[in-house]
Amino acid sequence: MGRKSDAGDRILEAGAKLFGQRSYAAIGVAEISAEAGVPKGSFYYFYPSKLDLALAVVNRHWERQRAEWLRILTAPDSLPDRLRALFISTREVQRQAVDGTGRVVGCLFGNLALEVSAQDDPVRARLQEIFEEQIDIVEDAIRAAGEAGPGSVTAPREAAKAIVAQIEGMVLFAKLFNDPGQLDQLWQNSMRLLGLENGRSAA
Amino acid sequence: MGRKSDAGDRILEAGAKLFGQRSYAAIGVAEISAEAGVPKGSFYYFYPSKLDLALAVVNRHWERQRAEWLRILTAPDSLPDRLRALFISTREVQRQAVDGTGRVVGCLFGNLALEVSAQDDPVRARLQEIFEEQIDIVEDAIRAAGEAGPGSVTAPREAAKAIVAQIEGMVLFAKLFNDPGQLDQLWQNSMRLLGLENGRSAA
Repeated sequence: MGRKSDAGDRILEAGAKLFGQRSYAAIGVAEISAEAGVPKGSFYYFYPSKLDLALAVVNRHWERQRAEWLRILTAPDSLPDRLRALFISTREVQRQAVDGTGRVVGCLFGNLALEVSAQDDPVRARLQEIFEEQIDIVEDAIRAAGEAGPGSVTAPREAAKAIVAQIEGMVLFAKLFNDPGQLDQLWQNSMRLLGLENGRSAA
Repeated sequence: MGRKSDAGDRILEAGAKLFGQRSYAAIGVAEISAEAGVPKGSFYYFYPSKLDLALAVVNRHWERQRAEWLRILTAPDSLPDRLRALFISTREVQRQAVDGTGRVVGCLFGNLALEVSAQDDPVRARLQEIFEEQIDIVEDAIRAAGEAGPGSVTAPREAAKAIVAQIEGMVLFAKLFNDPGQLDQLWQNSMRLLGLENGRSAA
């Protein structure tokens, strides 16, 4: 049981690593199994298909990222400070990837979203839910800040969506140019999107 | 000569269509040739490899899009009006794709960028140049508007980059949700990024 469970974890880790590096279509079960150090037959013991593994990888990635986003965005700091912390965390993830692998890995959800959007499949549906949840978390932070003081934003949902879109666009640039520094502009841009241009406290 | 040139065009059209629909890695020379209605051997008469075709597809797409962006962004209208025209044009491209194929195709450059960024290849280098050119064109429009009147933007390069990133992020949502309406927010967000929140004229 212990060994089997280890193998399942290794397959999940291998999938997360490979899907972060290359296109989903380019990666096969044989390569994932080799990376995990398990026989190909073991793969199918844990996952009926590559698609099921992709779903598991996406779900675990969101479970961790969601906890981090909630921790940062519900902290007792001003909204600008909370957003700044979120963007520093985002940049750090990419900087660590560069230190470890030489590459900005980008956003797993964005990478997969562009690839699977042509099909109606469970990964696409799950990614839709995850982006909605990301926007929800940012929206809640904006609303809470507005309730706590001046500087309320007139359209929190739209502002939250604009911020998440800005993250995705800037992470795309960071990946294309292999440069986490592309993310340094996120905070100032988000302040503008919120109408808080000088980063004055809103909570 | 006429026939051969037709075949080359058909291969280019087939590549543009297929790369817009699915992942680059998932599409082979055999499928592109079949879509173009030419023997596989003909493919290699025109393109040494799939990569060379991808470069040709990217270059032709940018040649057309660049002409459209320049036409719109150098028009004798106010900066807000020019940006509005750019976003209406962007949304129309996606809406026409939905009418024709049932699918938002997204941004060819963004789709490929996320897929090829893990490799150092000529497509990646070309996409870096194209995104820089897109930012250049928007920056020029912002600067020209500032010179022509009040409402000058303090950091035109950063603002231009924020706008192009916002387009990429929103096009990702449009593709994931298969909904061109996701792009309706682009104009208002860009006004905020430029500090022109009420869309007041800046040129």
